[in-house]
Amino acid sequence: MKKRSLPILLVGIPEQNADLEYAGGFRAPDPVVLLCRRGHRYLVVSELEEGRAQRVAEARSGNDTVEVLTPRKLGLKGARRSRLANWVSELLRRERVTKVRVPAVFPHGVAKTLEKRGFRLSIARGALFPERRVKTREEQKQIKESQQAAVIAMRAAVAQIGAAAIEHSGLLTIKGKVLTSEAVSGTITRTLLAHDCFCGETIVAGGLQAADPHEIGSGPLRAHEAIVLDIFPRHMRHGYWGDLSRTVIRGKPSPKLKKMYQAVKAAHAAALTRVKPGVKCATVHNAAEEVFKKRRYTTEVENGRATGFIHSTGHGVGLAIHEGPSVGPGDDRLRSGNVITIEPGLYYPDIGGIRIEDTIVVTRDGWRYLVPCEKHFEV
Amino acid sequence: MKKRSLPILLVGIPEQNADLEYAGGFRAPDPVVLLCRRGHRYLVVSELEEGRAQRVAEARSGNDTVEVLTPRKLGLKGARRSRLANWVSELLRRERVTKVRVPAVFPHGVAKTLEKRGFRLSIARGALFPERRVKTREEQKQIKESQQAAVIAMRAAVAQIGAAAIEHSGLLTIKGKVLTSEAVSGTITRTLLAHDCFCGETIVAGGLQAADPHEIGSGPLRAHEAIVLDIFPRHMRHGYWGDLSRTVIRGKPSPKLKKMYQAVKAAHAAALTRVKPGVKCATVHNAAEEVFKKRRYTTEVENGRATGFIHSTGHGVGLAIHEGPSVGPGDDRLRSGNVITIEPGLYYPDIGGIRIEDTIVVTRDGWRYLVPCEKHFEV
Repeated sequence: MKKRSLPILLVGIPEQNADLEYAGGFRAPDPVVLLCRRGHRYLVVSELEEGRAQRVAEARSGNDTVEVLTPRKLGLKGARRSRLANWVSELLRRERVTKVRVPAVFPHGVAKTLEKRGFRLSIARGALFPERRVKTREEQKQIKESQQAAVIAMRAAVAQIGAAAIEHSGLLTIKGKVLTSEAVSGTITRTLLAHDCFCGETIVAGGLQAADPHEIGSGPLRAHEAIVLDIFPRHMRHGYWGDLSRTVIRGKPSPKLKKMYQAVKAAHAAALTRVKPGVKCATVHNAAEEVFKKRRYTTEVENGRATGFIHSTGHGVGLAIHEGPSVGPGDDRLRSGNVITIEPGLYYPDIGGIRIEDTIVVTRDGWRYLVPCEKHFEV
Repeated sequence: MKKRSLPILLVGIPEQNADLEYAGGFRAPDPVVLLCRRGHRYLVVSELEEGRAQRVAEARSGNDTVEVLTPRKLGLKGARRSRLANWVSELLRRERVTKVRVPAVFPHGVAKTLEKRGFRLSIARGALFPERRVKTREEQKQIKESQQAAVIAMRAAVAQIGAAAIEHSGLLTIKGKVLTSEAVSGTITRTLLAHDCFCGETIVAGGLQAADPHEIGSGPLRAHEAIVLDIFPRHMRHGYWGDLSRTVIRGKPSPKLKKMYQAVKAAHAAALTRVKPGVKCATVHNAAEEVFKKRRYTTEVENGRATGFIHSTGHGVGLAIHEGPSVGPGDDRLRSGNVITIEPGLYYPDIGGIRIEDTIVVTRDGWRYLVPCEKHFEV
């Protein structure tokens, strides 16, 4: 028997596990069990979720049928009902399955119990659902909804920063009130919400704060400093994400910052020219890296801190904000229908950060923006 | 060596793993490794997160020191840096640790690799950080902030429903526009946001929709039907949750609904009278259950669907929305400083649902509301 044809077993919380949500078609905040084999899927949920899961399964489109089960339906009694490992054992026994493929993130506690009971688990090396990387038209439409919300929120944020006055102190103010990361972040959140989207960790990081790519930013924003804005909303109804970053400056950039911005913009463009089906992701990543090397932007550890182009060029976007393919130095190849970000950046603790990011779809002969958004450094 | 004194090893995404966030003091959307032993904690993060993790560790109060490490600092080179199992192996070797305690949700893939490399993993049966259940003053303050936001949002939602006109058709309208679950949910979300909180799955479920406790509700709201409102906001800055449910009706409840509401209110009150340190959670749960039994509300499976009082009376609230202690039939005992919900409910597919929920703190001689909120059925 080939490994690939083994039934796939997933255990976890769908809201935290995109494979589960993708394959089971059911969002929930509590643990579920999913077994996938040959066009048939078995979803075990608590009694509490049975009615809802049943309705979702019936409304599901696609070829695979989903059978909704509960611990009770599996014949579990009393306290035995409360252990997830029992849900799995009973399901596997009922379906006469003795060997399954599981993801690397499968819970070790359940795995050990299953092994003790004689079941065999094979840990998948690659993606369990490689088809997740190739987005259907419907999925592209859903990601586009979130990306559209990100673009509208970005415009609102950039307009707010662009409308700020520059005080003698260098602080940015609006109607005499100091403009903060929190205020711009609030504008973004409210705008996203009006489009049924939410982003919990919106980044509005100015000056040296932006030298850490994941720093969300706080406090007063200042003129003549680069401000990184990174908006990655999740749609509250269907759960697909969007992802968009821009870097702006209110006032006059130093020649150093101006050159750095131009380098990131050039790297972004260079990476995009390489995107088409069949191309290695490393080729796209290297194109961005080459631009930085030619312009003498070094990537190295300085005083124990990583500086330069310290992340990969991009990642897939879907039911997870970070999913395959990884647009980095690895072996992944692009395929038509991939939805990926292109987001080169430069980070130096004494200058700050610059990042430009778009989410694009790989098409049969190249790529297109999911939703185009203008790029202006000085606002 | 006693099991309890084994170092504790955690691997995962802090935003999805409250133990990691609690013990490491660091929120992040990407995987980290945490080793806890004898007052010292080692946190391994990617190079990307190093600066931010370092600042958070330095700002940390409390007795335990946190040492921030990266794959590079651990001496990992090239492609070996990208595997989490290597981060763990190098850390354990460096610290001369060969045996660790891990949670049941520990990733099986990493566990298998560690076992192959000669490390021994012992799966913890109970809570790894039982102290998480007893909230410090600071934690209580943080949960109170989220609960306060929930109370304000609840009042806004109830006011909106109470202000609705009742059409001949039975639909609720405001200024001629049909009032929907989505509209009330929007009011709640906007109100929470103004208080730095977010709730992704707010429940506004009317009529028969509310017979499923986790159904979020959709479409027009109707008069003379019970509407379950369940608001569980997470604070966007510190990550602590609140939890609050009320059931309201616009119009005239049927005698059946009125009786059912009175039963849930009585069960809520009965459960609360039992809350004090040292008491078994089962005693609290049974008090609610007894009220329903005396009033002849049955809990059973009807046509394959669970009906009646189909969930436990409550749960702990903290960095996770559902955490210990579980206020159900189990063996947990209450302790001073526990923050728990008391939320009995009744659910019947032909009538709908009723739930009343408050979040309380167990005190030395009883309990108090974190934030009191009035209960009115007819609005």
